[in-house]
Amino acid sequence: MAEIDGVRALLTGRPRPVGWSERRARIEEVAAADPPPPGIAFAPTTIAGIPAEWSEAPGVDAARVLLFLHGGGYCSGSIVSHRTMASRAGAAAGMRALALQYRLAPEHPYPAALEDARTAFAALLAEGFRPADIVVGGDSAGGGLTLALMVAQRDAGLPLPGCAWLASPWVDLATTGASMDAKDGVDPLIHRGYLEELSAAYRGGVAADDPRVSPLHADLRGLPPVLVQVGSAETLLDDAVRIAGRLGAADVPVRLEVWPHMIHAWPLWSARLAEGRRALASAGAFLRARGFPEAAATA
Amino acid sequence: MAEIDGVRALLTGRPRPVGWSERRARIEEVAAADPPPPGIAFAPTTIAGIPAEWSEAPGVDAARVLLFLHGGGYCSGSIVSHRTMASRAGAAAGMRALALQYRLAPEHPYPAALEDARTAFAALLAEGFRPADIVVGGDSAGGGLTLALMVAQRDAGLPLPGCAWLASPWVDLATTGASMDAKDGVDPLIHRGYLEELSAAYRGGVAADDPRVSPLHADLRGLPPVLVQVGSAETLLDDAVRIAGRLGAADVPVRLEVWPHMIHAWPLWSARLAEGRRALASAGAFLRARGFPEAAATA
Repeated sequence: MAEIDGVRALLTGRPRPVGWSERRARIEEVAAADPPPPGIAFAPTTIAGIPAEWSEAPGVDAARVLLFLHGGGYCSGSIVSHRTMASRAGAAAGMRALALQYRLAPEHPYPAALEDARTAFAALLAEGFRPADIVVGGDSAGGGLTLALMVAQRDAGLPLPGCAWLASPWVDLATTGASMDAKDGVDPLIHRGYLEELSAAYRGGVAADDPRVSPLHADLRGLPPVLVQVGSAETLLDDAVRIAGRLGAADVPVRLEVWPHMIHAWPLWSARLAEGRRALASAGAFLRARGFPEAAATA
Repeated sequence: MAEIDGVRALLTGRPRPVGWSERRARIEEVAAADPPPPGIAFAPTTIAGIPAEWSEAPGVDAARVLLFLHGGGYCSGSIVSHRTMASRAGAAAGMRALALQYRLAPEHPYPAALEDARTAFAALLAEGFRPADIVVGGDSAGGGLTLALMVAQRDAGLPLPGCAWLASPWVDLATTGASMDAKDGVDPLIHRGYLEELSAAYRGGVAADDPRVSPLHADLRGLPPVLVQVGSAETLLDDAVRIAGRLGAADVPVRLEVWPHMIHAWPLWSARLAEGRRALASAGAFLRARGFPEAAATA
């Protein structure tokens, strides 16, 4: 059996949970099913009052940090659910990772999550990190939040991170991508009805195509290099392709990788999934180089 | 002055030529304006009767070959015009390059170019190259031809190359991309009227959206990994973004890179353009690894 089929079995073995607390419990269960690799040190913390967790692999560059924004549709996900993904990504990038426990909808709709991300970014700067030594990334809603953070920073004339990483990003809260239907039959996790529920919970009174919640429609000029990774078995495939096209059209250096047969946020299951480890290796090289890695080696 | 502005000045310093022979002379003049790096050996040849040219940098793997299909809208371009790009790409990939002088329209419309590409591929196999040791790539029309070659091979049940590289590919002969208008003002080379003329000359009686001439509309399943590179100042930007999306949706491993402010087929001017050398370094790493390079290093 292909390794990805093992992940599919993990995800579809039981009925989908109903209700926010049940969903939050399930994502912590399934997304954290794969352990982090041995040797990584974890330390709970708060940053400007927001719960967070440091992770640090041996030998990383202490002057650099990956600010990790987890997925979960703005309504679930946590430091616990994404511990393996955040810590493996930091290790692959050769830097510490700071996973942020931003506030969740529906209790805390937009702009709570964005405010928390901006507060954490500002606190890292205040701690002495140079902007270029901070990279920001996340999966799914965390990818959209990464873009929203950068757009808000740019609009405010504030520093931007060195580069960004979007894994299976959700950038269109109006769910208009063609893959929303074309890939519905092969995506075990993400379907239109679920996304519409999450979208409504997060947006509050903001329109689904408002650029503040759907960065697909934002002015993206002036952002640092962005890596977008997506699986071919995702209803969100076209979110990734379209945001890569929009970033590129806005003169942002962008790399898009489509990984065949991978599902939403597959690096979560990197302990059992070689493609998860490979995707994180590719992301790590990009984050370390602050852009196209092979290209940086040649001038 | 930015290096790219020097290339722009080279391209726009004189009026655009009219007529096929004038265009062919001009592309040989401007595209070959940058010399190949020293140390590369060139050898004219024929392969199955088709004119071609070998290039070989010191220390490359003689068991592997890049079959290079030049651009020029199927109506111009040659071994001479693309000597620097083909030979630098082979050097970056660590293998010999074979640049093919396929037949040009309007004298030789579709399927002449495709037949020549298939004939050359078959001849390389007959010479003893393993399919996985052949990679195929090209710029502009040569990128479209690369895809058409692979689709035809797959349809015929014949071997496929190890991977492919498309630089500023032209894959939609109906010119329906949104960037055709959005980038018209910043692209110094490629405009709708010119493409329509080339399209008509190449297609003969074939419809512009026929997948045999517009691989954007082809069934792309089963193709090997593909790297797509494009500049953000190209009317063909959306050809690159859309073909990457289509390849990904068809479960083909695909990487798209958008290079800010670069123009159509910018690696042609790699002697004066650092971004040209960097793009070729990235392409070379991809071709050498037969797919995502950082990822291949980790298993």
